[in-house]
Order: sequence, then C-alpha cells, then structure tokens
Amino acid sequence: MSGRPPRAAAAVLAQTFAVWVPVAVRYRDLDPQGHVNNAVYFTYFEQGRLGYFEALRQLGRAALAAGAAAAPVTARTLEVAPADTDDRLELPLVISEANCAYLRPIVSLAPLVVGVRTERVGHASLAMAYALCPAPGEPPYATGATMIVCVDPTTGRPRGLPAWTLAAVRHLEPDLRIRGGGAQG
Amino acid sequence: MSGRPPRAAAAVLAQTFAVWVPVAVRYRDLDPQGHVNNAVYFTYFEQGRLGYFEALRQLGRAALAAGAAAAPVTARTLEVAPADTDDRLELPLVISEANCAYLRPIVSLAPLVVGVRTERVGHASLAMAYALCPAPGEPPYATGATMIVCVDPTTGRPRGLPAWTLAAVRHLEPDLRIRGGGAQG
Amino acid sequence: MSGRPPRAAAAVLAQTFAVWVPVAVRYRDLDPQGHVNNAVYFTYFEQGRLGYFEALRQLGRAALAAGAAAAPVTARTLEVAPADTDDRLELPLVISEANCAYLRPIVSLAPLVVGVRTERVGHASLAMAYALCPAPGEPPYATGATMIVCVDPTTGRPRGLPAWTLAAVRHLEPDLRIRGGGAQG
Amino acid sequence: MSGRPPRAAAAVLAQTFAVWVPVAVRYRDLDPQGHVNNAVYFTYFEQGRLGYFEALRQLGRAALAAGAAAAPVTARTLEVAPADTDDRLELPLVISEANCAYLRPIVSLAPLVVGVRTERVGHASLAMAYALCPAPGEPPYATGATMIVCVDPTTGRPRGLPAWTLAAVRHLEPDLRIRGGGAQG
Repeated sequence: MSGRPPRAAAAVLAQTFAVWVPVAVRYRDLDPQGHVNNAVYFTYFEQGRLGYFEALRQLGRAALAAGAAAAPVTARTLEVAPADTDDRLELPLVISEANCAYLRPIVSLAPLVVGVRTERVGHASLAMAYALCPAPGEPPYATGATMIVCVDPTTGRPRGLPAWTLAAVRHLEPDLRIRGGGAQG
Repeated sequence: MSGRPPRAAAAVLAQTFAVWVPVAVRYRDLDPQGHVNNAVYFTYFEQGRLGYFEALRQLGRAALAAGAAAAPVTARTLEVAPADTDDRLELPLVISEANCAYLRPIVSLAPLVVGVRTERVGHASLAMAYALCPAPGEPPYATGATMIVCVDPTTGRPRGLPAWTLAAVRHLEPDLRIRGGGAQG
Repeated sequence: MSGRPPRAAAAVLAQTFAVWVPVAVRYRDLDPQGHVNNAVYFTYFEQGRLGYFEALRQLGRAALAAGAAAAPVTARTLEVAPADTDDRLELPLVISEANCAYLRPIVSLAPLVVGVRTERVGHASLAMAYALCPAPGEPPYATGATMIVCVDPTTGRPRGLPAWTLAAVRHLEPDLRIRGGGAQG
Repeated sequence: MSGRPPRAAAAVLAQTFAVWVPVAVRYRDLDPQGHVNNAVYFTYFEQGRLGYFEALRQLGRAALAAGAAAAPVTARTLEVAPADTDDRLELPLVISEANCAYLRPIVSLAPLVVGVRTERVGHASLAMAYALCPAPGEPPYATGATMIVCVDPTTGRPRGLPAWTLAAVRHLEPDLRIRGGGAQG
C-alpha cells in the first residue's frame, strides 16, 4: 500500500478488516497544529497490531487446548491484553518497513478504532494493512501498512513463521492465500 | 502530596476519588526495563485530569441549561470527550507543579484507571490528586499531584477561577471546603 | 522510496543529502525490545525536516535582505532553530504520506544525523527523502520519505508553494529539476 | 525540593550543578498549547540523569584503570553516551518519586541544558536535583527532583549502592556529605 489509496478503495478496505482494535487518543498525541502528530499514527497501528497478534494467540491457545480444531473466531473489537506467557506461542518480530497515508487530520480526543488484517504471508514475513477510523467501517482518517519479519531472538536473522501463527492467520483471514510451503513451517 | 504515602493512606485515597478515568497502556509507554517509563505516568495523570474537567464541563453545561440547578452527578468512569466549544465554559490552565510517587512498576498492557479529585481550591488554582490503579479502589501503582493555575490566555498571568468551575467542583466534591471568596469569582 | 532500497542505493543516498541534521537519541525512544521504537523514526525525520526548512528560511531571509541574490549556502549540519517570525517566510504544511525502511536496529543512545533532501517538487507539494545515519554519508539505519503539501491555514486546502520556497529549494538542491510553472508561484 | 523554589534559590541552584547535559527540544515535545508538554520535562530530567551516571561511570572506569586514584573530573557538558558494558559498573536503578516545578513555559525549539546533582545519598538511594535552563547557570525553566533506588535486578528489592558509585559521587560532589556507613558499601 504505497501511495494514497483512492477514496473508494479506502472505503472498501475499512469494511474488510479481520480485527478492530480500540485506540484512545491522548492530549499528548496532538502537536502545536492541534492535530495528532504524524509519528503517532504508527503507534496507533502498533496498538492494532498487538490486538491482532493477541487474536492470533487466542486462536493458538484454543488450538493447543483442543489438540487441533480451534473454535471459530470472527472479527471483533479486542482489548489489547498482556503478552502471552506460553512459550509455544512465542513470536519474535521486527518491522522492516512501514507507511501511512494521511487522509484527513485527527483533531479531537474522541476514541478511534484501527482495523488490521494480513495482506500477504511469506516464509518469514507478514504484510499487514491498517485503517484508522472513527468506528469500524467508517471512512478512515488514515490507512497504512507494515512489513513484519519473524526473527531469531538470539541472532536477529529472519526465520520461518511458526506453524501456529500460519494456522491462526489462515483461520482469521479465510480469504487470504498463503504459500503452501509455509504452512508446514 | 510530596513523598511516598503510606500504604494505608494510599488505600484510603483510592476509595475517595470523585472521578475515575480509563487509561489504555500502550506498548510505546514501556521502556527497555519493560516497565511503563516514569515520564508517562504524568501523561496518564493528564488523561485523568481531562476526564475530570470534562465532568466539570458536563456540570457546567447542565447548570447553563437549567438556569442554575444542575442535576446531581456522581462519581463514575468517564471517556475523555472532545473539548467543549461553549466559550462560557472556557478554562485556560497551566501546570505549575507536578509530582508522582511510584509504588510498584506497571509491566503489562492491561488497562488502568486513574482516580482524580480536587484537594484544595485557591483563588486562581486547583490542587489535584491522582491515583493510578488496576481498577477503581484497588491498590495503586502510583499516586500523584499537580498544582493547576488558571491563566489569562493573552497575558499568561494568573486570574481567578471562573464561577462555573467553582460551582462544578463544589458539586463534584461535596466534602471539599472552598474558600468563601473564591465562589463569587 | 517505497520498499527497502538495495544497500548500494542506500550508500549513494547517504552521500547526496543537501542538509544533515543532528538527532539526539533519548532513552525514552527505546522500547522493551531495547531498540528505538518504529514510530520514533518518523520523529527523527521530522527533526530533519525542520532543519531543512530552517535552511530554506535562512536562504529566504538572505534573499529578502539582498533584494534577490542570496549568498550561496552549502550542505552542512544544522541545529534546529526557533520558528521564523517573518510572515513573508510563512509555510503552512501538512504530511499526506510517510514511509520508512528499517535497515538495522538502533540499540544505543549515541547521537545520529538525518540527511534530508527534496526529491520532487509539485505545484503544492514537496517529496522529501531521508536517511538516518551514524554520521553523514555512513551506512544508514533507515531511509524514509514523506510527501508534504502546502495548505491554506484557514481552509486546509492545498495551495501553491510560495515563490521564496521554490527559489530556496532550487538553491539548496541545484541538481533537482523543478516544474517550470511552479517557479513563478 | 517539593514546591516551587523562590527565584533566588533557583538562581543559586543553577550555578551549583556538578554536571550539565544538553537537551534537544523536539517539535513532538510541544502540545496544542504551543508549550513543551508537562510530562516531557521528566524525559529531559532523565536525559540529564543518564549524563550524570555516564560521568559517574567515567570516574568508575578511571578508578578501575588506575587501581584507585581517579583523575579529577570537573563539571562540564556531557553527551549522553552508550551504556557501559563493564559488568563491574552495573547500576540497576528505579525511580521511586519525581517532581517538577514549572517556572515558565518552553515555547521554542532552541536547545536546553539540564543541570544535575546529587542532593543526598542513602544506603540504597540517591536524591537527585535538576534545573532545566537555556544555558548553564541561566534562570531555569523548571527545577525538579527524583528519588532513585538501587535494586536487585532479579528480585526488584532495594540493595546498597555499589562502592564504585559512592566513590564516584563523592568525587563529583565534593561538598556533599555522604553517610559514613554507606561509603564502605
């Protein structure tokens, strides 16, 4: 998602996010122009990403509990919860690329939501897309994308996404096509 | 509130706040120690303060609407709302002093609440106290205080608190003694 | 500059920035991974952008002082200075798009520099590129880009870049081709 | 240092800091009032504290190198440097209390300095004072204080300050009286 998406595309995006995460705007987020500062949007996306990964972990936990068949989880608004402590659901990630298209300024402290979905899955990476909206499906203030890379926490080098992550992404994003090889991870 | 309050005092404080405001902890609030950074607590207090002033403005709006007798407003958890646009409820403030006693570290992204109350009212100032807690009345992570001064937005010099503010504080904090003179504002 | 530039290209970029602005890394910029948080890079780019615009204003002031012929200003490291108070050098801007390619993590508090240049000039916009480096010309930690739009401060709608800005950009970036029409601004 | 110090006292404070650390104000530090936000002052103090501890570590390194007699280090302006990697100079700290007296607003991006000194030394704690000034010894924008506690990194419980720290503080602050018992640490 490089460049400013057309308004129509933005509207479509906003209706098709797997997960919506609430974001509280803080007074501290505003700069002397009276707008949310441009850098803060990436913090909002980060909160969305944490919520998305929490949704993945819920699916992972359910799968661990059930042996294999996780209960279906549908799109919904998540509170960002404490990090998982189950080592089997570890997922060390770094961001290799981020972008944001600022469509209209955020000038109030009214709460927002950020829609999050996975766009593409690679061997060691997830391409994720975001829309920052007044409410789920409403015209976004901004859209964005990040490329996330799974790394070995010791060496910092890319490594394949865990199988539990691929299974959970597939569950959360039924329309997404994932490379066959990756799933065996 | 300089110095670390004894635990018993902290518990009492936590039960006696006029307003509780939810605070969402962000991943960005944590520093390399894995704790919420010390400076961020003052941002949490600021969110609490905004919620408190929104409660005052709700009372002010009710009083304006009713002529004089505002409907009783009791302690509750507020969402921080957009600033008031009624010029009669303008309240230009600066902070002259702030402090925080860090009682135990915040190490997760679980949501918090900040309790807020007015401790003392001066001619042009409000002494406000805060407690940052897992939930209203639970043992605080931190307590704090700020001195707030009402200023002339043009000159930046202190000026008396508006009458609507004094009336609303009196409403929200029935046990608080307010200097007689101030109320005529 | 969407996507991760090849290393060779990054090295070239780093040598060809019109302005280098020092950036002090703060402990507060690091997150629990012990790295500078992804959102903070956009704050570093912003500091670079402010330094670049200060360089433009210095040229604008020189041109105002000299009537027309400004003294040549060459690339150098700038301290970010207070905003200009000469209304003739006003330049109200918003960001319509931003991106960052994270090439390697920033794990220490050692000072950085951000290289800034204008990539393209449109009627109402500037495409700006950044490289965040240990020192001018050294291999970057990150590269980035923002699209900046000149807006009418009252209406918020795009308006042509001021003539003084175009003249100053042309001065600072002699190799940049600027659309003929824009220069008459 | 609770409460707003009188102007005369502030001036005295400003001339008597052992270490002065430069602080770069960022655009992102300003809030919609056009002032540096109240919480950011504690980040400035933190940068000062890091510079102070770097000065202590320089003394500690010199003492380790020399066996015992460190070269005299006098007050000066320090760049904040990367953390020390010598385990013998480890110093795990938490903040138990912080306060700030805001004397006049910071409204420009001009660089600042923060003066730092140790006020009192306890068995496991340092009481530190700060002044945020346009330049060393000039009238401060703000003064502040923090109580710092040395903790066991595993248990999080207070533990005595290391002997190298006490020796370095004594060196840097020749007029400070340190409890006799602590120095044997």
